[in-house]
Amino acid sequence: MNRFFVPKDWISGDVVSLKDEPAHQVCHVLRLKPADRFIALDNTGWEYEVQLEKLSADQVQGKVLKKEISPGEPKLKITLFQALLKADKFEFVLQKGVELGVSAFVPFVSERCVVKRPTESKVQRWQKIIQEAAEQSERGLLPTLYPVVPFAEAGDIAARPAILLWEEEKSQRLRDVLKQQSFLNAKSFSLFIGPEGGFPAEEVRYAESKGIVTASLGRRVLRAETAGLAAVSAILYAVGELG
Amino acid sequence: MNRFFVPKDWISGDVVSLKDEPAHQVCHVLRLKPADRFIALDNTGWEYEVQLEKLSADQVQGKVLKKEISPGEPKLKITLFQALLKADKFEFVLQKGVELGVSAFVPFVSERCVVKRPTESKVQRWQKIIQEAAEQSERGLLPTLYPVVPFAEAGDIAARPAILLWEEEKSQRLRDVLKQQSFLNAKSFSLFIGPEGGFPAEEVRYAESKGIVTASLGRRVLRAETAGLAAVSAILYAVGELG
Repeated sequence: MNRFFVPKDWISGDVVSLKDEPAHQVCHVLRLKPADRFIALDNTGWEYEVQLEKLSADQVQGKVLKKEISPGEPKLKITLFQALLKADKFEFVLQKGVELGVSAFVPFVSERCVVKRPTESKVQRWQKIIQEAAEQSERGLLPTLYPVVPFAEAGDIAARPAILLWEEEKSQRLRDVLKQQSFLNAKSFSLFIGPEGGFPAEEVRYAESKGIVTASLGRRVLRAETAGLAAVSAILYAVGELG
Repeated sequence: MNRFFVPKDWISGDVVSLKDEPAHQVCHVLRLKPADRFIALDNTGWEYEVQLEKLSADQVQGKVLKKEISPGEPKLKITLFQALLKADKFEFVLQKGVELGVSAFVPFVSERCVVKRPTESKVQRWQKIIQEAAEQSERGLLPTLYPVVPFAEAGDIAARPAILLWEEEKSQRLRDVLKQQSFLNAKSFSLFIGPEGGFPAEEVRYAESKGIVTASLGRRVLRAETAGLAAVSAILYAVGELG
């Protein structure tokens, strides 16, 4: 069934009114008819199964048949701190990250980033990629996209416990970190992934001085856009939320 | 250090002679000089650290300083049976699959595939993507790309144990399957991933009749090109070969 995130005030009692893009989708793209059904999501964790009743040029309205807590949300909330990457790579991380179960994204600029800060229209595009991926993958909450920050600030605002993946880390593996007490019972993690050129040692030392734990993903060298997705898959597998 | 897969007969005793594309890379792209070093891989699992000695228009030659078993190869060999996908998605699966540690790829055509069989030049492009990803991610062996086969034939040739990921499978999760005796001690797995439209129930029943085990990746709906990579990450994490 098609799924749409909608503003909370579009759902009033058991009546759902669609406007703008979702109304256009229902009428002109999907060409749904009265009695057809869709899922509305109000981004509070609930999902509403809706049966269409009225479809006219100025009104698309349906009736809520049932509501339930959306089953697609992982209990572990991962915030992915991702260094800016070249355009298609960053969009790829957003789309795949949402599918796999990332809860929030914080783009950051670090020393070896070669990409400029995004324009306002680029950020809107990112937001749209996140929303489409969340609808397609049956998420119950829309992952949050935070503004771009410098690396040092990212280190300050990141909720703990926090992991930084570093290809030069040889002794501590991700699996070792996940067994540490602070991670075993965590309800949320921060996960730091560097840019194409990686993190220089000074940035890693800075992160460590702030209590962020460095870890290795293993013996193969993953591209920047692959590392976060492999790590998110592995972490969510480890805690029972994927596979 | 730059890495190149080369034909075995380019390495003779402690002398390595480069031709063709690797010679061009060394001379004209990377502009290496005598005394610079690179890694040559002969696709037997060994890697050779080579110091350049001669660079001329018709000869690029170096001396082997040391050889060692390449540390990048996972012990568990995963063959990814991937239904044909739209062009960029399939190439994405090849590139990311190699980075993560897939040992071989078998493209197959199933009922809901919407993509035509690849041309010869497309297959050459795929081969090149695999080789570049293997060099970049520091693999010790070049993953094998098998010819495209129909789904039924794929089911026959796949080494067992074999897993088919199916979004309609609700009771058996990937983690349950990995605990089964036949998987616990396996040196190799086959992993089946469907096309954009998924597997129809008849294909799944057919696979099951051949002893292929169906499994779920969890509650979020992953795109076809994401499912294999999430599964490979999770499996290699589970067996200690990633993270």
